[in-house]
Amino acid sequence: MDFHFEVLKTDPTGARLGRLTTPHGVIDTPAFMPVGTAGTVKGLTQQVLTELGVQILLGNTYHLYLRPGHERIRLLGGLHKFMSWPGAILTDSGGFQVFSLADLRKITDDGVVFRSHLDGSEHFLTPEKSIEIQQALGSDIAMVFDECIEYPADRSRAAGAVKRTTEWARRCREQFRTNADAATNSGQALFAIVQGGAHADLRRDSARHLVFLDFPGYAVGGIAVGEPHALSCEMVAVAAGELPKDRPRYVMGVGFPEQIADYVRCGVDMMDCVLPTRNARNGCLFTSTGRVNIGNAIYTDDPRPLDERCSCMVCRTYSRAYLRHLFQANEILASILNSHHNVAFFLDIMGKIRQAIAFGELAEFSSEFQARIEAGES
Amino acid sequence: MDFHFEVLKTDPTGARLGRLTTPHGVIDTPAFMPVGTAGTVKGLTQQVLTELGVQILLGNTYHLYLRPGHERIRLLGGLHKFMSWPGAILTDSGGFQVFSLADLRKITDDGVVFRSHLDGSEHFLTPEKSIEIQQALGSDIAMVFDECIEYPADRSRAAGAVKRTTEWARRCREQFRTNADAATNSGQALFAIVQGGAHADLRRDSARHLVFLDFPGYAVGGIAVGEPHALSCEMVAVAAGELPKDRPRYVMGVGFPEQIADYVRCGVDMMDCVLPTRNARNGCLFTSTGRVNIGNAIYTDDPRPLDERCSCMVCRTYSRAYLRHLFQANEILASILNSHHNVAFFLDIMGKIRQAIAFGELAEFSSEFQARIEAGES
Repeated sequence: MDFHFEVLKTDPTGARLGRLTTPHGVIDTPAFMPVGTAGTVKGLTQQVLTELGVQILLGNTYHLYLRPGHERIRLLGGLHKFMSWPGAILTDSGGFQVFSLADLRKITDDGVVFRSHLDGSEHFLTPEKSIEIQQALGSDIAMVFDECIEYPADRSRAAGAVKRTTEWARRCREQFRTNADAATNSGQALFAIVQGGAHADLRRDSARHLVFLDFPGYAVGGIAVGEPHALSCEMVAVAAGELPKDRPRYVMGVGFPEQIADYVRCGVDMMDCVLPTRNARNGCLFTSTGRVNIGNAIYTDDPRPLDERCSCMVCRTYSRAYLRHLFQANEILASILNSHHNVAFFLDIMGKIRQAIAFGELAEFSSEFQARIEAGES
Repeated sequence: MDFHFEVLKTDPTGARLGRLTTPHGVIDTPAFMPVGTAGTVKGLTQQVLTELGVQILLGNTYHLYLRPGHERIRLLGGLHKFMSWPGAILTDSGGFQVFSLADLRKITDDGVVFRSHLDGSEHFLTPEKSIEIQQALGSDIAMVFDECIEYPADRSRAAGAVKRTTEWARRCREQFRTNADAATNSGQALFAIVQGGAHADLRRDSARHLVFLDFPGYAVGGIAVGEPHALSCEMVAVAAGELPKDRPRYVMGVGFPEQIADYVRCGVDMMDCVLPTRNARNGCLFTSTGRVNIGNAIYTDDPRPLDERCSCMVCRTYSRAYLRHLFQANEILASILNSHHNVAFFLDIMGKIRQAIAFGELAEFSSEFQARIEAGES
């Protein structure tokens, strides 16, 4: 299957129902992508991911490059084969991770010199190198190497990052085309990333530059890095306004359950976030009535399911008292069940959002969802 | 269903094919029981245990008493309901664990004073208390509180432990009967435990004393605590020779894959061991050609399944290279997949042993099994 995107319906709010075709299956959009950092979505087997209806997951170029190494994965048949995952994979560019290594990196127009968090070894990541790695991994969607900035960032810093991101996007596209024959996955697509910080005009400029370069899909990066949620949405909406309607739009690294529909209303088709898995391991569970810290003593004798409205295996099978016990005892099963529920919960929200768009009821979905969370547990 | 045991066939070697009926299902014997210490078989969901064909698992009275507490579990409907496990459960008496707390316990004829490994709090475990806890947990099979001794132990020490174990078995039986109405599981059965160290005559005496007291099943304890395997088998055979043929026989805490058939040939019907799960978490995997330390660098680029002869989900799905990567990266999935394989491997051995007994081919099974392990990987 070649890469292909189709918008099936657009809601009056701007939300889009779509279908993204990749070499590893069709993805119903808006889609939530669980994060499989090092070739595994922490705590879940690939069988469980399939059962949960995951159609696409995210792999981290930075982590896989350092361990086990992209050339090793290439020799083992690519990331899909390496991790035995039949569905689609999107790889990030490594940019976000290396820019997060504040004390361990040095940036030039060429690229970023950084030290591995694993062993301190020195590495040089460039736009070309990022593409080379992602081509070896053979993801279905690769991302351009961009310059990620902190929040707040002043205008000149943000403008500099936009300029560099545009130039790096051009270099990535060049490398991607030149080296296409070496890719493990011949149907791989390359998405660009809009930057610009919290400056609307820079976001607009960034999007226009990238659209001029013509990519099959566009992401908005540098969102939810500390700014208020309303500002995140504003920046996404500004960028989306410049992006072609017939290409998928992806907001990177968002968001909380109650924020997902907001991004969808900005015309976003894809999101990824570590929240469901990372919070699960810390005992923070997402439910239809808000967040539950399962280690809390109030759940010690509670025979009820975690979320009575949730139909996932965990909520159908186990009690809060049992989940609390597992968490207190630091059992592996705590991470397994908590991750299972949280990922199921995020996927369920996206499924309900898709249904709401189909029936023209996204506004109702959002207000009911918010009302339940604000009311808390009855 | 009431507790009931039936021997379907006895092999010329002494091995028995049987069927144990409990309030929570029928168990094909010889049976291997995975250990679910704190209400979970570490790394496996109850769904996976069911898929693997687990019919009975073991719960640890010591751990569940300390956390979350047996009265809490009673109020939540018993251990089966607490952990949502539909199959059978055997609980140990807590004896082995408290006797293992060498510096933290004091033994008298009344019972054992010990300090919790969790918070240092002081507790007093008696035969009566052990039964009370196990009745609250509502296991299908409860065990008497016995005195476990170290190896080597001289004759007078071993004789003292036999005497105390016999007296405690009598007290356990008394408490079990007196308190039967309070039990969470009305069909619960109580097994006695033969002690005697490495002294054949004491093992014989211990078994005779307990048989005189008349229990629905008998275990042999204090086996594989440091003595040579041949001596373990000798002690088990001596004890089994005294036990009634119509009652199930259980050897506690054994054994390595290549030893399982030896115990079965001694007329043993049930075994439990932490080896498959504990070793899995340390990267030690059992295969048809011997043990594999999956962290070993020789597996870094190995695309083959862990064990080509194994049909478990892990061996059908993932490569050694992937398993090695997960283990090196300390991913939760390493524990999940390693535990899955090891438990599947032990269950598979028992399944093949049952089949071999049915066809009168246990000797052939054993010699082929040993030959493959001795030959190692081809």
